[in-house]
Parts: sequence; structure tokens; C-alpha cells
Amino acid sequence: MYLTQGLKRAAQVDFDGTSTCIMAPDGSERRRSWGETLGRVAKLASAMQKLGLGAGDRAAILALNSDRYYEFFFATAWAGGVFVPINIRLAPPEVVHWITDSEAKILFVDKAFSAMLPALAGKIPSVQQIVYLGDDDPPQGLHAYEAILKAADPVPDAERGYEDLAGLFYTGGTTGRSKGVMLSHRNLVSNNFNVMSVFHYKPGSRYLHAPPMFHIADCVAVFGQTQMANSHYFIPMFTPEGTMDAIQRWKITDTLLVPTMVNMTVNHPKVGEFDLSSLERLAYGASPMPEAVILKAMQVIPNAQFYHAYGQTETAPLTSTNGPESHVFDGPLAYKFRSVGRSAPGVEVQIRDENDVEVPRGEVGEICVRGPNVMQGYWRQPELTAQTLRGGWMHSGDGGYMDKDGYIYVVDRVKDMIISGGENVYSAEVESAVQMFPAVAECAVIGVPDEKWGERVHAIVRLKDGQSATADQIIAHCHEQIAGFKCPRSVAFVTDPLPLSGAGKIRKPELRKPYWEGHTKQVN
Amino acid sequence: MYLTQGLKRAAQVDFDGTSTCIMAPDGSERRRSWGETLGRVAKLASAMQKLGLGAGDRAAILALNSDRYYEFFFATAWAGGVFVPINIRLAPPEVVHWITDSEAKILFVDKAFSAMLPALAGKIPSVQQIVYLGDDDPPQGLHAYEAILKAADPVPDAERGYEDLAGLFYTGGTTGRSKGVMLSHRNLVSNNFNVMSVFHYKPGSRYLHAPPMFHIADCVAVFGQTQMANSHYFIPMFTPEGTMDAIQRWKITDTLLVPTMVNMTVNHPKVGEFDLSSLERLAYGASPMPEAVILKAMQVIPNAQFYHAYGQTETAPLTSTNGPESHVFDGPLAYKFRSVGRSAPGVEVQIRDENDVEVPRGEVGEICVRGPNVMQGYWRQPELTAQTLRGGWMHSGDGGYMDKDGYIYVVDRVKDMIISGGENVYSAEVESAVQMFPAVAECAVIGVPDEKWGERVHAIVRLKDGQSATADQIIAHCHEQIAGFKCPRSVAFVTDPLPLSGAGKIRKPELRKPYWEGHTKQVN
Repeated sequence: MYLTQGLKRAAQVDFDGTSTCIMAPDGSERRRSWGETLGRVAKLASAMQKLGLGAGDRAAILALNSDRYYEFFFATAWAGGVFVPINIRLAPPEVVHWITDSEAKILFVDKAFSAMLPALAGKIPSVQQIVYLGDDDPPQGLHAYEAILKAADPVPDAERGYEDLAGLFYTGGTTGRSKGVMLSHRNLVSNNFNVMSVFHYKPGSRYLHAPPMFHIADCVAVFGQTQMANSHYFIPMFTPEGTMDAIQRWKITDTLLVPTMVNMTVNHPKVGEFDLSSLERLAYGASPMPEAVILKAMQVIPNAQFYHAYGQTETAPLTSTNGPESHVFDGPLAYKFRSVGRSAPGVEVQIRDENDVEVPRGEVGEICVRGPNVMQGYWRQPELTAQTLRGGWMHSGDGGYMDKDGYIYVVDRVKDMIISGGENVYSAEVESAVQMFPAVAECAVIGVPDEKWGERVHAIVRLKDGQSATADQIIAHCHEQIAGFKCPRSVAFVTDPLPLSGAGKIRKPELRKPYWEGHTKQVN
Repeated sequence: MYLTQGLKRAAQVDFDGTSTCIMAPDGSERRRSWGETLGRVAKLASAMQKLGLGAGDRAAILALNSDRYYEFFFATAWAGGVFVPINIRLAPPEVVHWITDSEAKILFVDKAFSAMLPALAGKIPSVQQIVYLGDDDPPQGLHAYEAILKAADPVPDAERGYEDLAGLFYTGGTTGRSKGVMLSHRNLVSNNFNVMSVFHYKPGSRYLHAPPMFHIADCVAVFGQTQMANSHYFIPMFTPEGTMDAIQRWKITDTLLVPTMVNMTVNHPKVGEFDLSSLERLAYGASPMPEAVILKAMQVIPNAQFYHAYGQTETAPLTSTNGPESHVFDGPLAYKFRSVGRSAPGVEVQIRDENDVEVPRGEVGEICVRGPNVMQGYWRQPELTAQTLRGGWMHSGDGGYMDKDGYIYVVDRVKDMIISGGENVYSAEVESAVQMFPAVAECAVIGVPDEKWGERVHAIVRLKDGQSATADQIIAHCHEQIAGFKCPRSVAFVTDPLPLSGAGKIRKPELRKPYWEGHTKQVN
């Protein structure tokens, strides 16, 4: 069980077949075979070792999607190192935290991100060498990717595997600093097999990497599609038109998009101008999917089968899936696509209460996960690791319930649940109701201290420019949508956008803080 | 990674769905849900512990196929024990060897095999308790299966997993005594995932257990279909009509048969009288498949997709597969079904020479395997284990080559290859040629000492009753089929059937022995 086994197998069973393909900057197509990619990975690994990467050392990357990003993953593993893919939406101080926390020795940057280097200068002392992924001449002091690769003699695969650390994936940020999720070779290979068992890739599939490759959701395909010897196609970053153009040009059969991307694509004015009929399987995940979007997608791409993938970085990442059999509107599985599906074949899921006892079906608790895909822990955070993995189960922080058929429904983050007058209120459900009020641009629902109710359901609302509404109007609107005890009892209006984390999630602890000062509730 | 996880997941995602189904002795259908089976396994495990089964202790079973055989596997794992399924075609002394070598503490027998117990009496001292699987009253001194199950309180799953030993599967016998292949939980679960990745089981599949369940080929389904929560249907033993009847009655979607069974089924005079259209996937494996048989099968069961599974007990067992994409007659993969396919996604295969160096594509060497599915070793045979697993690779003993597309072709057992005049001759190929001579009932081709050629190709032939042939006729016939250097230079005629191992393979060491006495060739 080691990541480069998949690459070696792909070169063994499809030496001349396409491994990677991308449009080069000059507009030509850059297509490489599995045989070429295997050779390049063995040489890049050699170059990385010459640049000082030893067994277990970290190599970080900050770049848009490309075939070289793909090679970086496998070369790092081949060299015996640990990859650290960096979120491309971070501000320089956050990038500094990821690099210094992981003590990365080598940093890879592409043309898009080399401009950030001056802002990092002097703040990332662990980095001894920087490699430039661009096709043009590298900035002063950086190594040119193709030059070091060309100059290197291939080395044998280090064949680290099983419990050896493969990658650090930083996550979080809504509550404090990002933490490095330690995923071993076993974690990632186990995930490959969960994915392959349920997604039913056919030999010869063509996968499009459209979401950013630093994200574990795209890494599923980096490693999983390789294990099946399927071909990888890349666009530098997601745009609706770029994605549709790529699907049409390369007759893409498979991709995974986050719900926002699906939404932007299927509701794009030009969606009818592209031939998307090659798409056999469209997976979506990483955040909740609005029902209207999936219904529109099923209508716009009727050839495709739809899969919902649910999980977290900590589960490498697949926890559960919903396949095409539950994307239906009648029969016993009608509308089960509203859930996040059933546990993946090799993954154990239990819904547990605060005492770590499994709750009966239908009752809300914390979604907990066990299996060979569950992370080793948080990098250099033994206490947080012990807390998260207590009792041998990964505590996801997601509140949810399981129905009698084993389908899992996520209701809210456990920390965002509100207990008001003894009733559980899920902020996500209330936010959905508030959001449907036409004048609302965005909103967050939190619990605030209340003498009568313990916690009171409170909405913080930003209205669309030029629109107006009163608290009473919004509360009355909610009473038409959801039970009375769930409705906000107070509404605060703000004019600034709500504070977001690097991952684009609303920072609720920040919103809760002023209300809870002097009270005892844990607000992080 | 532990076997009972699959069972628990199945009960979680399909509590009321069919787990097992068999025709009971009274002619009624005995169908159990996943919820029931889970409860029964937890109770049977409890009963086994009460009968003295401790962690790592062995429990053996000698029985025809049934739902209870299925429960035995999972209950043994649940109790923390190690299962030892016994070949149903063995003579009592061989059964004694398997039981005493494994030191099984508990023995399960059904009605069919309880008659063998007197022949075992006094010879299997490790066995402290015997459990009777039959529905009638048990023979004196045996525990009734349903009675001990009913009396037991369920125990929690022992949750042995990963490197813990799960089962001992005895194999071999053509060369000396059977040896116990040690398969861990990780080995068997890894195999599940290789199988699920390529066989593309759909949710709701119905699997027929027709080959004997002691065999690793059927265990693939015992564990793999459970991990997918698919339903298990059983017939006590294979017969062509019984198999076709079961497929029709239960609308079976999946099964795996050995080539002989496929042959007997598709060439059965009544094949046209059964509706086999429910069969979506027919896998075959465990011995070479004659081309005529697979062609006939594709014609008789046109709805089915065909899969060839190749492997050994030592690889738990899947090494490589050929899917429907290579069961074709034109295009780039035409006739690739003549190979044993390409390595399974998580399995490494190399063809290696006698110095353990990988040979170039197209050259014959020994098929060697590495991966999490490879056995821990042979039970209490450290030297044989070290020899078989030298350099970290499992040496299969099969000679073969790999083509440029990664398809693997088995040519012969390495030990049965003949080097004659410096040329490699594969006995299996020569046997195929001899076998085509109409008067030949059976034959074995071996190398015998020869002053001129080093080894001489020698055929041992038994003619069909009432038929006649000369050595010259047979040799002349071979010259029409294969190259001259491969043809037998001498033929010996025998009248007794050739000596067979328990697994039905010709015992070539026995045939070679008289020729090689006083010479130095290793004949085992």
C-alpha cells in the first residue's frame, strides 16, 4: 500500500496511453504517456533529493492546476518525502503559517504565485530551495522545473508505504489557525479503494481536474484515477466556460465539482452551446448541494450519473456516498439524494452522543468515523489529535442523523447547533429559511444568551444593495417555512460582508463573541 | 480493516434486506435479513467462545455450502478466532493432517460429512468440541448448531483486524503435504477491494455460491459481496442443473465458477430450458479456461459480462483480471481474454528470472506478486515461507510472460518447464497438442534425462477405452500442431488413470521420479 504503486501499475498496463494532458501556454496540447510520466517522476524525485529532500521531509506547493502539479505529488512520494499542497486562496501570512508549521524544505511555485514570494521573503526559514513550475525563465534564485528534471538521473522508488506519512493537508481556519492533517500512504490508498468500489470507473475513463488540486477532493482523483490507469486532464483553474470547453474538447467522462461549481456551470447562459454528452459520471461534494442545483444538473446533463461524495480531509476524505440509484424521485430510494449517502464500503460510521454512545436511528448526534482511511492525527498537535480521535473514532464535528436505511443526513456543525428552550435548533436549517427571503444577501444564525430560553435563535443579516426589510418581516417569513421554535427571535442587520475563513466559510465564533462576553458558553 | 466490519456495515445500510438464502431440507426457502444474520453471528461467536475458542484459536469446518457455513466464517472472526475451511474432497488421512496441523479446537461438520467422524476418531486430539450443522438431531456427543446459537447471549465483536490472522487455507498437495496459507484480515480485506474495484457490482446484486465454499475462490464472494451488502444465495454443491435452476429461481446476477463448471453448464443438454438472462456478470478462474468453453459461454449467456480472475490462495487470491473489455474479437484488445488479464489495481506483478530480476516483456519467467493481499506465510513453515516470499515478492511457481500492454499469459508451472537442447518447452502447451489426438484420454508431459538434449520431452499417455495409437502417430500429430523442438521424443502408454492430487491436478513429481532416480534434477 503505497501511492507510487498505482503509478507504476498504470505504466505497466498502459505504457503508451495518456497519463496527463493540458493546454500549454502556447496553445498547443501537452500530452504525456504513462511511460513518460513514470520516467519524469523518477527524475524529478532524483532532483528533489539532490535539492536536499530526505526521507520524511516536507515539500510544499503553491500553484494552479497542471500536469506538473500532478508529477509533484508522485515525485515527492517517490523521493520518500511528504507533500504539502497549499490553498491558493490564502493571504501571505497564512501561507507563511502553513510552510513554517510543516517546516517544508522545498517549495514549488508557478507563475501565478511567484509574485507572492517577496511577501514571504525572510519568513519561511525552513525552505532551502524553490522550484519554479512556469515555462518561462524563473525569477532570480529559483530552479527551473524542466531544467532540474532534465539534468537528473532517475532514482529508484523509495517505496515508503503503509503507516509512513504521505501528505500534510491543512484544514480549518474558521476556528483558529489551520492544522495539518497527517495522511499516511495507507489512508490515501484505502480511500482510493473506497472510491473505486462505488464510483465504477470504466477502463479508459478521462478525468478533468477543474477544482484546485491542493484540495483533498481533487486529490481523490489524482491518486484514485491513477490506481485505475485512467487519464488526467487539467485546466489551470475552474471557470464554468473553461470546464465545459474542456469536457467537450477532451470528451471528459468523469469529474468531481464542488456544488458552487456545479451551480455556476449548469446555470451558465452558454450551457446549451457545449456538448457535455461524454460526461458519464459527475461527482459532487465538499459542501452541501442545494436541491435546485442537482435537479437542474440532472436535466442539463441527462447522460451523466450523479454521485455525492461526503467526507472530510481527516477521512482522506470519503466517508459516505450517494450513487445514481438514489438520485431518483420515486421508489424506495426516492429523494435519498438529499442525504449524504451511506458509508463507503470500508468505512464505519456511527452517530454518537456527547458520551460517545451510538444514538438510535433518526436521532441527531455527531457523525463519527473509523477505518483505515482515518488520519493519523493533526501535525504536532497531540492533544487535539487525542480529543478528535478519542475512543478510536474520528469525531467529525458534523451533527447529523442516520435513517433506517443507513442514509446519513448532515444537519449542522455540532458547534453551531443551538439549544433553545430545550429544543435542538440547527443553524443551517434556519439560515436556509432566512436566505429564501428575497431581500437577504447573506445571513448567519447563531445562539445568543437568553434568560428565558437559555439560548435564543438570532439571525445576523446583510440585505442586498438597495433593498429593505424589517426584523418582523424576516421572522414572519421564517414562520411560513419552519417550526416556530426554530425561527429567529431577534435579527441584527449589518452592512459589511460577513467574515469568512480561507475556505470561504462564515466565521461564526467571531460573530458569537460579542454576545457571549461575560457568559460561559464555549464560542470556539 | 477487519472482516466483520463488512458484515456490520451491511446490517447498517440494509437491515431488512436479504443476507442469505437457501432451500431448506423441507423444500421451503430459508431467507435471512442482514439484521438477523448480524444477530446470529454475534450469538454463534458467543457460543464458540463458550466452547473454548480463545483469541487466535482455530475453528475448522467440513461441510457442503450453506448459510450456516457463511455464518461460521463471520462468527469465527467475531469471536476472535481463525477459520480453517477443509476441502470436501479429501480422504480421512488428509482431513486429519489439516486438523492436526492447524490444531483446530472446534470442528464444524454437516450431515454429509458427519459420516467421516468415526474415521477421524482418536486422531484429532486438538478438537475439543464438534458442532453439527444439520437440521436433524446431531450424532452422539455433537452440539446442535441451532441449539447452541439459541442458548447464547450475543458478545461484542472481538474486532481483530489488520495483521491479525483471519484464516488458514490449506493448499498444495501435488508436491508433498498440504500447507496452511496464513491470510490476515488485511490480506482478505485488501482482496475485497481489488475485487470491488474491477468487478463493478451494482447495489442489489444477488450472488450464487455454487463452487465449494472451502475454496478461496468462493471466499472472495463470502467476504467481498458482504462488503458491498449484496445478497448471498447457496446451493449445497455444484451441479449444472442445480446451478441453472438457482440462477433462474433467484434471478442471480453474479457468480464465479471454475472452468470445468462453466463447461458442464454451457454444454449441458438442458441449457436452453433455463432462463439465465438475469446473470449480469460471470466470473471464472482457479484453472485455465479452454477457449472453446468461453466462446460457448458467451454465446449461451449473451446478457452476461465475463471476467477472468487469476490468482492463488497465497494472494488471497486475486492477482490479475480480464474484464469484459478484453472478451472481444476485434480492436486493440482482441482475444486478450486468452491471457489471465492485467494486475488488479492494488497488486504488483513482475515476471522475474531465476536471479529475481524482472525480465523484458514477452520473455518467460516466474510470475511474482507483491501487495497487501500477499499472505503472511505458510503456517509453521518458516523456511518455505522465506523461500516463497524472498525479496518481499511472492513467487507463484507459475511460469508466464507479460505482453507490452501488461496482459499476463501463464505458460506452465515453473517446475514443469522442460529445457531441451537449450530451448524452453512448456509442458502445458505440449499436453494441449497431445490431448487433441482423438484416441488420447489423458496425458502428462514431463522432462526426462537425456544425454544429448539434457532433458527430453516425454509424454505419458492413457488411451480411451477400446482405442489404439502408436508413439509415432502421436508424435506426428504433435508436429502438425507445435514446433518440432516442443514435440515429445518418446511416449509411454499407461492403462491406469494418472495420479491426481486432492485438488485434481496430476502429480507430476510422482511421474518424474522413476526417470530421475540417480540424477540430480529436483523433482518436487
